[in-house]
Amino acid sequence: MSEILNKKYIMRRTQIMSKKYLVVGGVAGGMSAAARLRRLDPYADIQVFEKGPHVSFSNCCLPFHLSGVVPEADNLILMTPELLKKQYNLDVKVLHEVIKINKEEKTILIRKVDTGEEYEESYDKLILSPGARAIRPSSIKGVDRDNVFTVKNVVDIDRLKKYIDNNSIEDVAVIGGGFIGLEVMESLREAGKNVVLVEGTDQILAPMDYDLVQVLNKEIYDKGVKLLYNEKLAEVADGKIVLESGKEIKAGAVVLAIGVVAEAGLAKDAGLKFGETGGILVNHHYQTTDSDIYAVGDVIETTHFITNKKVRLTLAGPAQRQARAVADHIYGRTYKNTGVIGSSVVKIFDYNAASTGLNEKDCKKLGIDYDVAYIIPKDKVGLIPSANPIHFKLIFQVPTGQILGAQSVGKGAVDKRVDVIAAMIMNRANIEDLKELELCYSPYFTTAKDATNMAALVACNLLNGEYKQVRTSEVRKLVEEGAYIIDSRERVEYEEGHIKGAVNIPLSEFRKRLDEIPKDRPVYVHCLSSQRSYYMVRELNLRGYKNVINISGSFLGISLYEYFTDITTGREPIVTNYRFNLL
Amino acid sequence: MSEILNKKYIMRRTQIMSKKYLVVGGVAGGMSAAARLRRLDPYADIQVFEKGPHVSFSNCCLPFHLSGVVPEADNLILMTPELLKKQYNLDVKVLHEVIKINKEEKTILIRKVDTGEEYEESYDKLILSPGARAIRPSSIKGVDRDNVFTVKNVVDIDRLKKYIDNNSIEDVAVIGGGFIGLEVMESLREAGKNVVLVEGTDQILAPMDYDLVQVLNKEIYDKGVKLLYNEKLAEVADGKIVLESGKEIKAGAVVLAIGVVAEAGLAKDAGLKFGETGGILVNHHYQTTDSDIYAVGDVIETTHFITNKKVRLTLAGPAQRQARAVADHIYGRTYKNTGVIGSSVVKIFDYNAASTGLNEKDCKKLGIDYDVAYIIPKDKVGLIPSANPIHFKLIFQVPTGQILGAQSVGKGAVDKRVDVIAAMIMNRANIEDLKELELCYSPYFTTAKDATNMAALVACNLLNGEYKQVRTSEVRKLVEEGAYIIDSRERVEYEEGHIKGAVNIPLSEFRKRLDEIPKDRPVYVHCLSSQRSYYMVRELNLRGYKNVINISGSFLGISLYEYFTDITTGREPIVTNYRFNLL
Repeated sequence: MSEILNKKYIMRRTQIMSKKYLVVGGVAGGMSAAARLRRLDPYADIQVFEKGPHVSFSNCCLPFHLSGVVPEADNLILMTPELLKKQYNLDVKVLHEVIKINKEEKTILIRKVDTGEEYEESYDKLILSPGARAIRPSSIKGVDRDNVFTVKNVVDIDRLKKYIDNNSIEDVAVIGGGFIGLEVMESLREAGKNVVLVEGTDQILAPMDYDLVQVLNKEIYDKGVKLLYNEKLAEVADGKIVLESGKEIKAGAVVLAIGVVAEAGLAKDAGLKFGETGGILVNHHYQTTDSDIYAVGDVIETTHFITNKKVRLTLAGPAQRQARAVADHIYGRTYKNTGVIGSSVVKIFDYNAASTGLNEKDCKKLGIDYDVAYIIPKDKVGLIPSANPIHFKLIFQVPTGQILGAQSVGKGAVDKRVDVIAAMIMNRANIEDLKELELCYSPYFTTAKDATNMAALVACNLLNGEYKQVRTSEVRKLVEEGAYIIDSRERVEYEEGHIKGAVNIPLSEFRKRLDEIPKDRPVYVHCLSSQRSYYMVRELNLRGYKNVINISGSFLGISLYEYFTDITTGREPIVTNYRFNLL
Repeated sequence: MSEILNKKYIMRRTQIMSKKYLVVGGVAGGMSAAARLRRLDPYADIQVFEKGPHVSFSNCCLPFHLSGVVPEADNLILMTPELLKKQYNLDVKVLHEVIKINKEEKTILIRKVDTGEEYEESYDKLILSPGARAIRPSSIKGVDRDNVFTVKNVVDIDRLKKYIDNNSIEDVAVIGGGFIGLEVMESLREAGKNVVLVEGTDQILAPMDYDLVQVLNKEIYDKGVKLLYNEKLAEVADGKIVLESGKEIKAGAVVLAIGVVAEAGLAKDAGLKFGETGGILVNHHYQTTDSDIYAVGDVIETTHFITNKKVRLTLAGPAQRQARAVADHIYGRTYKNTGVIGSSVVKIFDYNAASTGLNEKDCKKLGIDYDVAYIIPKDKVGLIPSANPIHFKLIFQVPTGQILGAQSVGKGAVDKRVDVIAAMIMNRANIEDLKELELCYSPYFTTAKDATNMAALVACNLLNGEYKQVRTSEVRKLVEEGAYIIDSRERVEYEEGHIKGAVNIPLSEFRKRLDEIPKDRPVYVHCLSSQRSYYMVRELNLRGYKNVINISGSFLGISLYEYFTDITTGREPIVTNYRFNLL
């Protein structure tokens, strides 16, 4: 009897108190918000509207279906509406497009995609997480051909894969060298296709700087992909693409990965305010200018943790954290809004590339005074067979030494090093802190001083004015100008390949050959990876040579910086023979 | 003419001003100090004395010679005295044992190991980095037999390897389950030997806690190594060892890895003061009680960054940092003495195990109020073929939420997660900071919320009293007491194996079966890895069930916690069938 009364009480309580939350968009941000809301309130009416046929699919795994790493397109779908209902009591409606928001009435208008039927739904709180759609510029001739694809959802990737398979397509053009373009390129190449990657600027992977990208250029080239820079797609024609330069390239299918544009129409029509970056303006709690409407993910503008500037970011991690914050705010919980720093990583064939915080381009654009430590040590103790060079670049503020960003490229755990820097950045740490940071060491995992510690040592030396450096990007000019360059490697190394015009004064000989080193002009010193040259520069400085400059990255860095442009342009190399590893 | 004058001037200047630094010990700390001194002063007379035949060998790679990963013992020697002289102008004297310090005269007495000849050398500054030697207790009968080995240097490992090879030894006993014991055990097993590992306590790897070690126990067991706990070596006899328990085990060779003792004799004889931990007492600058004598590495006591207690640490990374600090101090440079937190990692067959900061045992010993978040998510997105469960344990202070330590075990990048925590600890960060930490994400590297973020979410929930948990270590008692345990996995999962007596109420059914769940007694809930059980616990709490408790680690954690003891003791399992992975 009391059981029955109790149930009645709960039912009444539910009817009286239960809140109604509507969520627009059923991928990263939307589903995270819905799930968190359910954990905070078992009685709430939570409805998720997704205009596509799937929710909760692995957005970030889409490209891997092309190589067969993800064998079936269906594998990409992690949860179905049925399971979400059964396990989490969420009402998830696919093929339901939200077409209008009525702020005053607190309702939305929904159109069922398959029947065209429209209906209204009221809300207590509305959460917008509509994401972004791939750009398909109408200025490209033939952009609507059935062999032109974008990759934003399971339907897209399934269509692309089936088109390639069914039509035995061998030649594919990928337009755009961002994350998606690169992953699509890699996956198609791994599937044995002839791939051309067309990039509109002078580098792939915008979060990284030009110098580190050169390492990836070599990898992409070595894997047999044709990589074109400063080229834009003009037309998709029969069996080929035509670039704005007039160049024609054989292509049976074209993948456009030139960027995304936020699905902001709904918010715009509703009169919500947009910020300076074009994203929906949200406050600290991710409330839009209508306090009952929240927005998260690709569609909003957020605050950069380091620069305090408004930025747009299309990353899954921040979207999920924002979604959780929204649910927490609705239920009166406090949380920390840290903004974003933009940490990311991507695998490109055998190489990994990770970055966090600001890059050099950002610093220049923002007028931030900075310096760079770029080192190429081994990622593990050299005796371990899987040890490889790791390119690690640390960007720090001048004169404070505050850590601003890092980039790393290599075959090993570059993400580990960059994650450590992300943690340091979000704690507003300094290069001095990084120098002393005690990380896990064993020969299988890193060196006794990890690359991050070493970079901090170099950074401290630079900041303290212990020595000067030039970058690999400046070496070609130095060679052309006939600068005095010392190669401090041993004779046998020099003979295997060196910078044209460099003088070989090995570290093991230089103390006896001091007379040869001029004092009346700048002296540039390199070795293989700047360890030995650093010794020589320091000692020459201490011996009274005032204008001795280390070549950051040394012969390894120079080789990698020059290689791709040399072979793709046919220009005269500045080295007699490249060198690409530390062994 | 002016050249000659100039040279003369330099020579005079060198004679007048050059300082003399003597370094005792030529491995991690000693060589780092010498190298840094050279970088700060090209004119200094720097001499390094090493009683063994090698300097600059890879201490940490020694065990890998046994498996052939490092093919030749000579590969372990990274630098020779000749090369150190040529490249860095360091005078490195091997087979030179320093046998006495005369503080008043500022001299040391050196004995040449091969000739017995003795001579004196004066110093401006003396740096002690003598390291530690392996313990060989005379209480063990037969400890001096020629088939009993320790592993501290190249000679040791060369002797061991040759003994095994030349005598076709098939059965080897390794005594001690620390880093060296484990790596020797692994390497010998990989070389196809029958290996028994004898550990004196109830767990291997002291820096970790008992629960995480169980995962490693299974791996070691699965790889065919006999692992004995709470056993001590009493005697080495012909072709066997005898344990204190009376147990006898076939063994043609024995490796003692039961710990090290600092080479402190020289410092003791010189009357330098020692601290409460038995290490040489040093100040902030690593100066001993004689300000002209510095000491670094295994021989000193250092300060724990978190606890402010004096501790001993035998790790290469801190030794190198201390050595650099010494050279900097000698040359009037400031630096940051951060103390130590004890970050470490080790590979054991297919598993990696990393830890940093305080473990539970430390917290208990020090009376620190703490709590633990222990999760077992995947280390990458599940669709990636190389995704594996990662055991991640976060230890945080109650009530502050300050991060105290972390441990992680798994096949993937456990070091990455623990390094991130090390960075957070050294920035005195809180679990709230970790929750919001923006790390690199791509499916090949982690999940959109990394294990570290997830653990922080769990930790925040625990700290905020959002729900209660019991640990896997408590489940056996609960089962024996007939506690009410809900298995919230789906029926098919339950049928494949479950906790004896657990009631199967799947997350997808529980809202319809609320009546079955008692309100008058504690209700314990688990699923596979605590994701679904967390939902159920939260919702039951919100629905008015006040005594619902999550089982941390869930079925996966319980299986791993119980397995090794079950099979090695033959006790009755509390599960009908173990489950060891997330797939």
